[in-house]
Amino acid sequence: VEANPLYRLMNPRSIAFFGASNSIMTIGTPFLLNIIKGGYRGKVFPVHPAEKTVLGLPAYRDVFSLPELPDLAFLVVSRKTVLDVLEACGKKGIRLAIIVTAGYGETGSEEGMYSQAALDELTMKYGIRYLGPNCMGIINTAIGLNTTWFPYTHAPGHIGFISQSGSYVTQALPYFARTGTGLSKAVSIGNQANIDMIDCLEYFGDDPDTRAVAIYAEEIKRPRAFLEKAKDITPAKPVVVMYVGGTGAGARAAASHTSAMAGHDGIHAGMFRQAGVLRAMSFPDMFDACLALAEQPLPKGNRLSILTNSGGPAITMADACNRCGLELPLFDLHTRERIKKIIPPVASPNNPVDVTLNYDPDLIFSKLPDIIMDLPYIDGMLLYGIFGPVHLRNKINLAGDLVEIPIDMISHAMEKACTRLVSACRRFKKPILCACFCGREDDETVKQIEDGGIPVYPTPERAVKAMAVLYRYSVIKARHGGITYEYN
Amino acid sequence: VEANPLYRLMNPRSIAFFGASNSIMTIGTPFLLNIIKGGYRGKVFPVHPAEKTVLGLPAYRDVFSLPELPDLAFLVVSRKTVLDVLEACGKKGIRLAIIVTAGYGETGSEEGMYSQAALDELTMKYGIRYLGPNCMGIINTAIGLNTTWFPYTHAPGHIGFISQSGSYVTQALPYFARTGTGLSKAVSIGNQANIDMIDCLEYFGDDPDTRAVAIYAEEIKRPRAFLEKAKDITPAKPVVVMYVGGTGAGARAAASHTSAMAGHDGIHAGMFRQAGVLRAMSFPDMFDACLALAEQPLPKGNRLSILTNSGGPAITMADACNRCGLELPLFDLHTRERIKKIIPPVASPNNPVDVTLNYDPDLIFSKLPDIIMDLPYIDGMLLYGIFGPVHLRNKINLAGDLVEIPIDMISHAMEKACTRLVSACRRFKKPILCACFCGREDDETVKQIEDGGIPVYPTPERAVKAMAVLYRYSVIKARHGGITYEYN
Repeated sequence: VEANPLYRLMNPRSIAFFGASNSIMTIGTPFLLNIIKGGYRGKVFPVHPAEKTVLGLPAYRDVFSLPELPDLAFLVVSRKTVLDVLEACGKKGIRLAIIVTAGYGETGSEEGMYSQAALDELTMKYGIRYLGPNCMGIINTAIGLNTTWFPYTHAPGHIGFISQSGSYVTQALPYFARTGTGLSKAVSIGNQANIDMIDCLEYFGDDPDTRAVAIYAEEIKRPRAFLEKAKDITPAKPVVVMYVGGTGAGARAAASHTSAMAGHDGIHAGMFRQAGVLRAMSFPDMFDACLALAEQPLPKGNRLSILTNSGGPAITMADACNRCGLELPLFDLHTRERIKKIIPPVASPNNPVDVTLNYDPDLIFSKLPDIIMDLPYIDGMLLYGIFGPVHLRNKINLAGDLVEIPIDMISHAMEKACTRLVSACRRFKKPILCACFCGREDDETVKQIEDGGIPVYPTPERAVKAMAVLYRYSVIKARHGGITYEYN
Repeated sequence: VEANPLYRLMNPRSIAFFGASNSIMTIGTPFLLNIIKGGYRGKVFPVHPAEKTVLGLPAYRDVFSLPELPDLAFLVVSRKTVLDVLEACGKKGIRLAIIVTAGYGETGSEEGMYSQAALDELTMKYGIRYLGPNCMGIINTAIGLNTTWFPYTHAPGHIGFISQSGSYVTQALPYFARTGTGLSKAVSIGNQANIDMIDCLEYFGDDPDTRAVAIYAEEIKRPRAFLEKAKDITPAKPVVVMYVGGTGAGARAAASHTSAMAGHDGIHAGMFRQAGVLRAMSFPDMFDACLALAEQPLPKGNRLSILTNSGGPAITMADACNRCGLELPLFDLHTRERIKKIIPPVASPNNPVDVTLNYDPDLIFSKLPDIIMDLPYIDGMLLYGIFGPVHLRNKINLAGDLVEIPIDMISHAMEKACTRLVSACRRFKKPILCACFCGREDDETVKQIEDGGIPVYPTPERAVKAMAVLYRYSVIKARHGGITYEYN
């Protein structure tokens, strides 16, 4: 692994930064701000021709004045100075670079192509491996290193993200935080002039912090290498790709973004299938799938159960299950009787189990999951119906002193029951996925369940789609590993 | 219209409430709390056998003690007392009721069926029209009346929602607020024992506050009547349905929820098509579509433009457009030259127009939309790339006193440019839909654009899907109205 340049690039002990100043209007400044304020504990050396300090750090006139040899050079300078800076870095002995600067191959212009070729020539001369140009850099949540524009605010997770778009590793960070989607690492690959998608795939395949790999792709540059590398990885680690270069408009747009030579959708779909790579048709689909794949055990078959306190969303789930190839077996008579005994009289004991409006968290988070998850003909559970404290707090806000609401008592019961829910997927080695219209920012219970490793999706359909991907990956894994499961 | 019982039911001058107390554990209490704290200015009379006041309002021993004849009775009492309460209401002269109480036809039991038949008999005797049983009541945002469990916190909008699920008009309210989805009115129809979906459809067809109708359906109870009524409405007002009873699992689950006799998916799909009803395959899809339909003009064709400051999301949009049957014409040479003059040199002047990282809100919100929206071969615009003040505030939080950020100046420029964007759809009579990973809660600019009537979707794909529905509805409308458009 250490031969892969990404190992050191993702874990630099020190960074020389070119292109920040003490003004926010300098394009490099927000990048440096994010690096020094994101929790990174390595050394950062701003290089600036005039300033004594940059953002509070001692600044250096040029790369030769640096007190030590940095592992990595980070460049957000104008295109005409990139070569000079790189040449100096090469002479100093720096062997890794991230080049944010744009205006290369992606412009389609002769000048851009020429500039990119000049980059290649120079870096080859000094043996420099580099990311970009026209990229946003990297995120490594394990060491708090985030070179992009937006802060990474969620806890470290287990999804490795390879993105041909810088926007998706910056502007999407608030989305990840809101949906409880934890990244291990992310790489914005830009024009892939040197380090490319395959290098990243290899790196993530070996990275112990990464349990699922997400790829946003406008083109697959070296298809044969991609196929071989993906084939190696997918039997052990799921790879989900969102490929947008397959339509006429997608391909044309991609060409002017990262000079991507995009190709026929059907051919790519076939390649992904052959490589055991899962395909997502939208950004939320990709991360919904990766979150489930990274956090939950795989189902052994396609037979699901649904548990709820809300009819409509559960029926939506049931309908969506059938559309995705998931089955909802009827419960056996004995189980129905057991369930009937503990649910309200108007409630439905069948699959879906609908306890209707009910205040007892023990029932829906503990007693019923313990019965359902234990059934030999049930491979996993979908749960819609989290009423956390937000639900009560809403009412307290409305109620004022008109009526008393025992929120502490209820919150405590909720918390206890949820602990039991969270342990159920481990105890039964079967996946649980939840859905709730409230998010983790609104509701402690949602947060507790998510932090316990059970994804909580914002709508019923998204939980079902993610479950369908878990099932599809279990089939891929079985095929590659020679293991066969019995279905139904 | 006044013959339709929903007219008075949605606009009661006074409500007799049965089933609340001064304890939050009484199931009716949260409903009453929501009614009296939601802004409703009509009279509310709690009826309670023992209490002198309920939630601060004078309480009445029985319906005969009420100081006047209420327009509407609201019942959340136990099933065994429903008939007694209704009988008294009938004698008093009340002719409208909402029955929340469950345990009727939806249970599938003989007892449930019998109870529902008894309800029919009694209400027929007194000429009472009623909603339910097994429902959550209504929301009328124009008069601040919300009988459900959750508060309605967003501004009134123009979507009328008919729901066979009570959960979707309660638990989804925070979702509506978060996504800037404004309702005019909502009806939870429950078992539809008396007032049914067709009555609601008729009512919304005539309701001037409602510009688009959303229907969550587990069954279509009177298919011929539905078809006829929908055919009347859809040439003038769009109707979007989410039907979940068409699969085996969906139908079975629906049967135990609202005793729905669900039916074959393909037959229903055909009926919806014949009626000019648009079909959504998920809850977010339905409301994404309704929001666009309610707020934006229709495109005259399928030729779109994309404007962005972020490559990846714009390419995602381009790819999604082609998959949805939308085209992205190349701009003419003259237009490309005009655009080139005002965008940065590395930016792309074609369709998509990608200005790349750029701080000038005037460019993306005003100058470019004014050029693009005016093109005769462009029917509408998709915009990804809102960097509102949140983006800067993030940086200010990070920066502390390390670097100065002129947030007031930038916010002001942003606000001014956005006003121009918001007026563009009116000036050019073409739709604009936006996407941004930040929501209205995070960002004033998103809020400003949404409050100006331009939906801002949380991901690029959702904006495209909503645009595709606008186009599909324009085709339906043209077909029904005998107007023909030229495409491409």
